[in-house]
Amino acid sequence: MRIFGVDPGTATTGYGVLDVIGSHQFHYIASGIIQTKKDRTMAERLGIIRADILCLLEEYKPEILVIEQLFFFRNVSTAIPVAQARGVILEAANSHCLPIFEYTPMQVKLNITGFGKADKKMVQFSVAKLLGHESIIRPDDAADAVALAICHARLNLAGVQPPLSPSPKGTQPVR
Amino acid sequence: MRIFGVDPGTATTGYGVLDVIGSHQFHYIASGIIQTKKDRTMAERLGIIRADILCLLEEYKPEILVIEQLFFFRNVSTAIPVAQARGVILEAANSHCLPIFEYTPMQVKLNITGFGKADKKMVQFSVAKLLGHESIIRPDDAADAVALAICHARLNLAGVQPPLSPSPKGTQPVR
Repeated sequence: MRIFGVDPGTATTGYGVLDVIGSHQFHYIASGIIQTKKDRTMAERLGIIRADILCLLEEYKPEILVIEQLFFFRNVSTAIPVAQARGVILEAANSHCLPIFEYTPMQVKLNITGFGKADKKMVQFSVAKLLGHESIIRPDDAADAVALAICHARLNLAGVQPPLSPSPKGTQPVR
Repeated sequence: MRIFGVDPGTATTGYGVLDVIGSHQFHYIASGIIQTKKDRTMAERLGIIRADILCLLEEYKPEILVIEQLFFFRNVSTAIPVAQARGVILEAANSHCLPIFEYTPMQVKLNITGFGKADKKMVQFSVAKLLGHESIIRPDDAADAVALAICHARLNLAGVQPPLSPSPKGTQPVR
């Protein structure tokens, strides 16, 4: 089972690819970021994000996409561009007929680090530990995407380590 | 000059097509809505919106796309799905290399009706009057999209009736 995690953003979209072997282990395959420049129009930046996501889905052929659920209550002007990027990523995943799952940042942090308000460094260290890596994944947007994929694996796949958070929320396909 | 106005939404996206003849008149070409059902996943709905927008751009071959600028400060949970739909529409317009312009609902209402807090019916009646139509355009999402196209024509094209609002805001391509 190959999982593609994605942390959407207009300037930087992180991605991470994980294989679940049998029903007991998960292995890191790849991670990285898609960057778009500020001097491009919003429409051009969305075009780049969609094209790059489609290339990555073609290259890694995942069976599931896991994406961050937007949960902004304070800053709607930040939420809108992120939601626009999220829209093109969901549409790209749909064009590959991928099942899509979503988790809030707090669900992921709780599952990965045991602390729902963990900072970026704590997530990076916990991701490295869970993967058995000596060094952390950089940049943090890529680590966040890998964390999303690990969170889904831990919450849903039989035999994988039980989640730190028993919450069933976020385990349903996005509607 | 053919203008394609679009009022984005997950359940209903309105569109309206307008021709500006010479530099003096505008003529209604077409309008309508793209609807997606609640029982589809968000990703499927975004896929339908993108595919339908691409078909319409192919059919009407506009030279400019005008889209509503999101301006939600109260309800972020409503803003996010609309922004996701807006993202796929911007990306679709970019794939056709269309220049994109955006206006807030208040800018459009002020320009079309002379009143920035006009209701849906007032916009529909003013659009019909400006087009010289006897009947209003239905549904209101389609009328809103035509209003966006008219607003852009009135604010930007020489010789067209001067705007009720002299504000230069929203006359720049989306960044």
